[in-house]
Amino acid sequence: MMAVISLTTDFSSRDPYIGMMKGVIAGINPAANVIDLAHDLPAQDVRAACFVLKGAFHYFPPGTIHVAVVDPGVGMARAVLCAHAQRHTFLAPDNGLLSFLWTGEHEAKVYRVKNHRFFLSHVSNTFHGRDVFAPVAGHLSLGTPPGEMGPGVADCVTLDLPDVSFNGNSDLTGEVVYVDGFGNLVTNITRWHLGELHHFAPERAHVRIGHAKVDRLLDTYGQVDRGQILALMSSFGHLEIAANGTSAASVLKCGAGARVSVRCGP
Amino acid sequence: MMAVISLTTDFSSRDPYIGMMKGVIAGINPAANVIDLAHDLPAQDVRAACFVLKGAFHYFPPGTIHVAVVDPGVGMARAVLCAHAQRHTFLAPDNGLLSFLWTGEHEAKVYRVKNHRFFLSHVSNTFHGRDVFAPVAGHLSLGTPPGEMGPGVADCVTLDLPDVSFNGNSDLTGEVVYVDGFGNLVTNITRWHLGELHHFAPERAHVRIGHAKVDRLLDTYGQVDRGQILALMSSFGHLEIAANGTSAASVLKCGAGARVSVRCGP
Amino acid sequence: MMAVISLTTDFSSRDPYIGMMKGVIAGINPAANVIDLAHDLPAQDVRAACFVLKGAFHYFPPGTIHVAVVDPGVGMARAVLCAHAQRHTFLAPDNGLLSFLWTGEHEAKVYRVKNHRFFLSHVSNTFHGRDVFAPVAGHLSLGTPPGEMGPGVADCVTLDLPDVSFNGNSDLTGEVVYVDGFGNLVTNITRWHLGELHHFAPERAHVRIGHAKVDRLLDTYGQVDRGQILALMSSFGHLEIAANGTSAASVLKCGAGARVSVRCGP
Repeated sequence: MMAVISLTTDFSSRDPYIGMMKGVIAGINPAANVIDLAHDLPAQDVRAACFVLKGAFHYFPPGTIHVAVVDPGVGMARAVLCAHAQRHTFLAPDNGLLSFLWTGEHEAKVYRVKNHRFFLSHVSNTFHGRDVFAPVAGHLSLGTPPGEMGPGVADCVTLDLPDVSFNGNSDLTGEVVYVDGFGNLVTNITRWHLGELHHFAPERAHVRIGHAKVDRLLDTYGQVDRGQILALMSSFGHLEIAANGTSAASVLKCGAGARVSVRCGP
Repeated sequence: MMAVISLTTDFSSRDPYIGMMKGVIAGINPAANVIDLAHDLPAQDVRAACFVLKGAFHYFPPGTIHVAVVDPGVGMARAVLCAHAQRHTFLAPDNGLLSFLWTGEHEAKVYRVKNHRFFLSHVSNTFHGRDVFAPVAGHLSLGTPPGEMGPGVADCVTLDLPDVSFNGNSDLTGEVVYVDGFGNLVTNITRWHLGELHHFAPERAHVRIGHAKVDRLLDTYGQVDRGQILALMSSFGHLEIAANGTSAASVLKCGAGARVSVRCGP
Repeated sequence: MMAVISLTTDFSSRDPYIGMMKGVIAGINPAANVIDLAHDLPAQDVRAACFVLKGAFHYFPPGTIHVAVVDPGVGMARAVLCAHAQRHTFLAPDNGLLSFLWTGEHEAKVYRVKNHRFFLSHVSNTFHGRDVFAPVAGHLSLGTPPGEMGPGVADCVTLDLPDVSFNGNSDLTGEVVYVDGFGNLVTNITRWHLGELHHFAPERAHVRIGHAKVDRLLDTYGQVDRGQILALMSSFGHLEIAANGTSAASVLKCGAGARVSVRCGP
């Protein structure tokens, strides 16, 4: 059955861990189309995994099973969750990684994964990616409904994500939540936040980060000279600070957590 | 339909960008066999992408669709090209990445990709890999002919590649164009160039790079002692400077752009 | 035919070498499910590849073809081996990479790969991964029996692996053989070795590495405070020294080869 499974982990792609998960899946459903969404995420950074999965999952076909293993609590009491929302299925530890599913406007059905029938026969204490997540994903990809994995749960861990705060109606402050491999600084400020500003327009936006100041939002990198800083809406739909042809993170010496403010005015 | 699609990008493999492209392809043709040819190429280095794709594509089966996204001009006026040549199909920005297709002896049919019917419904300004290249590749893999993507074009950007220059008939100079992960220094000097030298033979070649001098071409790394520099024909069919068991780039402190000369004589 | 092929190499995943191997396989068996087990292994480190493959292969379905190319002797006299053992098939250079197949208790049938009919028509001196291993794996995945690749061999290279030594019946010494991307230090001391210690129990084990001392084996990382060192059985089934939430390799300034001792007592 040609189901699609996506994998998001903080495992190093030079270790055999991801390959072992794929081996387990292939043993259960050799026809599954397993796609690496992101690996080598900052170790144990649940926020980064949450941000990536939230921004990416809807580019996959409905019915995709998204497996996300950033799991500092492996082998401890934390639960494993299987959620069904927006026609996609998600498997992740109950550590907030999936909180975007229940803080938004969509309905999510969530189950606690407890049915050992779908696990490897020996479950280690340190690698549930291989022993629990991979075989459960394999069975889901064969059509086993999420509800067979365990009982429904109502109360799941929600990440304490940095807020965007408004100062009056022409000013807001957010922060960098993801730095990509080009050194682009992606913030938690969305199109919706900007739209709440009084008389917002891209050419009336003034963006500050560290000592840098940018005086309008542009459309794409090539609109400024090489090496210059610009602000634009990223392909994730979030405000992004970039530098044409180079790394804004290096030029500005900023990373995740850096504060970014936007003021709207002439 | 079991079509093969190869991907070559300068995206970081730790970002979700490549996975998002694969998600889009899977939504259009879940049976496509998507193969990573190269990622994490030097950012915006069109030459490196051109070199890699030129040297690698013919190892894929005829009919493969090669998608190459190294795209400093994304969102600007640059076109997207779909080319058909040597029984393979290629998708890339019109920035010279595909120039090897029209500077050689083979015929290439080239189209400008303009038909929005094959794009995602929302096209961002900064990530055409996901919004244009991936869905177009998906449709090509289902059998849509390249000519349906847009009008034919005759005039495309050609890269200004470093030349190999001959000094008389026993001496030539080229340069390093690719440094691989082992630190091997691959040059733009091909078997054909060497064959133009008067009475060329591997044992009569004297290679200079930086302060190093090598006195014959060998067949493989293990023919010199560990740590020693050697020159040989790389698996790309180009002259390569290597060091047995270690990185020639580190030992010689050389990288892309370093000049390499070959003299043929006793 | 939906066969599974795993790939283990020391090639950089940013180079096109792995993609070229997959292109060759796709040309022979487009339906093969090719899974990256591990790449970017320490260059030419046959021991690391041996450790990874030994610990991982049995998580793949029976019938999987495991291709391992860590090949310092490429182009020299070393043979290429095709082995069948424990219902899996293995392809690797005859440099000891597969020695776990003949030093254990299981039977292995081993052939020397010599039949050029299954190679690419031009075999380079430096990239047998593409020219020999990939096409042979493609043919094996179509059902060609290992015995058609060449004559049986009885005598293969065996790696000289570091021993675990016992000092009396309550004390043993081994060493770190693999450092993963989290900085976990995996040793060559297995559950079997520990079981040989007199009255062994996890709470009676005293582990020393460098200047650090740990006084019992735990089950998982979260049982100690963040940043603290612990010892546990890794998911490979080997003794592992880790640090909760950080890299034990950095904290202890230890790597492969570091000596680890275990004493059992009150």
